[in-house]
Amino acid sequence: MKNVTHEQAYSLLSGIDNILILSHRSPDGDAVGSMFALYHILKDMGKNVRCISDEISRPLNFVYDSDAFADFKEDYVVTVDLADTKLLMDELKEKYADKVFLCIDHHQTNVAYAENILLDSSAAAACEVIFDMMKKTGKKISLKTAEALYLGISTDTGCFRYANTTARTLAAASEIVGMGVDNGEINRRVFETKSKEYAAFEIMAMNSLKTYFNGRCALLVLTKEMFERTKVKESDTHPINALPRQIEGVLIGIVIKERDDGVYKISMRSNEPVSAAEICTQMGGGGHRLAAGCELSGSLDEVVDTVLKITEKALAEV
Amino acid sequence: MKNVTHEQAYSLLSGIDNILILSHRSPDGDAVGSMFALYHILKDMGKNVRCISDEISRPLNFVYDSDAFADFKEDYVVTVDLADTKLLMDELKEKYADKVFLCIDHHQTNVAYAENILLDSSAAAACEVIFDMMKKTGKKISLKTAEALYLGISTDTGCFRYANTTARTLAAASEIVGMGVDNGEINRRVFETKSKEYAAFEIMAMNSLKTYFNGRCALLVLTKEMFERTKVKESDTHPINALPRQIEGVLIGIVIKERDDGVYKISMRSNEPVSAAEICTQMGGGGHRLAAGCELSGSLDEVVDTVLKITEKALAEV
Repeated sequence: MKNVTHEQAYSLLSGIDNILILSHRSPDGDAVGSMFALYHILKDMGKNVRCISDEISRPLNFVYDSDAFADFKEDYVVTVDLADTKLLMDELKEKYADKVFLCIDHHQTNVAYAENILLDSSAAAACEVIFDMMKKTGKKISLKTAEALYLGISTDTGCFRYANTTARTLAAASEIVGMGVDNGEINRRVFETKSKEYAAFEIMAMNSLKTYFNGRCALLVLTKEMFERTKVKESDTHPINALPRQIEGVLIGIVIKERDDGVYKISMRSNEPVSAAEICTQMGGGGHRLAAGCELSGSLDEVVDTVLKITEKALAEV
Repeated sequence: MKNVTHEQAYSLLSGIDNILILSHRSPDGDAVGSMFALYHILKDMGKNVRCISDEISRPLNFVYDSDAFADFKEDYVVTVDLADTKLLMDELKEKYADKVFLCIDHHQTNVAYAENILLDSSAAAACEVIFDMMKKTGKKISLKTAEALYLGISTDTGCFRYANTTARTLAAASEIVGMGVDNGEINRRVFETKSKEYAAFEIMAMNSLKTYFNGRCALLVLTKEMFERTKVKESDTHPINALPRQIEGVLIGIVIKERDDGVYKISMRSNEPVSAAEICTQMGGGGHRLAAGCELSGSLDEVVDTVLKITEKALAEV
């Protein structure tokens, strides 16, 4: 494993061809955005490029390019926004986990699985890292690349709301919007539009809201039945992760999602001084300080019990 | 009335003293932000300055400075974010409407009531106009001024979501955040915090959601009982107006609010090609093309019936 600079990463990409780009399963806006931004950059460089991705949810798929999934035998694997190869889709893990030539990421928790790694944990999004790579090497950014970069930066910052939005992030967004990206229309699609099914799902989710520990913890449960009844997919439910923490006085907001296989995905958001990452690490997961996650197995009651016990302990230290 | 440049406006401010700053009643983030930004700028210039303002709602009051309301006899009146003196608080109208020395604004609909006017309708916020005035004159912006500017710019753009967010807006925000403003914390307070009461109210509101006319109309009813049960005030429920229209396929989103006096306030948002203003005008109201309102009396059933009939007619023409 070797840490590389933005310039070195660009140079490494220049020297290879037949490149497969991968990101994490249940791709969010930054996974999708960084995959397609890099795809367009490499295409513009004249490379053969291919992406393999889990299904991309509808509001994010305006950057989709069907050519990106054309089949070919890759010589190099590049990952984006992927902190750990454990987060690859299952069918990709065995094949590619040990074969990543370059990883471009912004997760502090990156486990350094790649041969070369361009990691900037001060960046709000993997797309910000890719933007910096292009800026530092003085390369031109096409409109398609800019749109994908905007998607990643805007979604990973909650449209510039979250504390990870720095002066640098806003300057990058300003330059990207200046390239002709229709940010108002993208924001309307991504942040201001809900499918009927999702709207119904969200109402069910909010009806499951419970608070604990003097209102310092709020918890939502998204059951398999809710997913089945509304046909909403787990990958569409990212925005719900933000809801419990929005309630005044809440230091830890938790969303528990039941998966088909009886596994529960826990998404946790915290407010200072609580670290969601520390809590999730104790349950075998990880993430950012204020937004982290993990997976647990067992019955729903057992899982809620485990999560609440560790949360209570964390709150006792505040 | 004379249009002035950013530089001329700064020069006019330099030449006067004992300045009263006013903005519109029910002040939003840009009214509050531009008042306090200008207050701090003028204080930093060594001027006597005073503000008079309607009550400032809690999430916006972190820029509040009690000294700003100290009493003195003003020699000059300056308005910010005020398109028309009709929008002043009632008790200020008669006294000051004809005495405005300088107006700093970004509303295209500004009725040009001031002796001097610095108007930039391409700016997303009055605070963006004030920021530009300081930049173009090469003046230093203090942290307190920067915080107030951030408040105005972020709230008038829905935290950089709305289509009025330009590359210039984002560049201004980048510079302001670079001055040390804690944008994450401000955003958390202003955009990411709901009182427990409001969160409960919102769940009740969403549970009342009904759709009509093949999902092209969505309607919420906020009853007197819901207001009484949660102690939420009507003035706190503006964000709910946006919810029905967010559902995919909805062309007309309607929120009906029951008032104490048996009158119903109708808030309507539309998506193109439907004009909410046209529909509301037929019911004695008005507003912007995509966001309008009116008031109706009668029983709830009668009011819903009236609104749906006119809505159905409007949808038949699409």
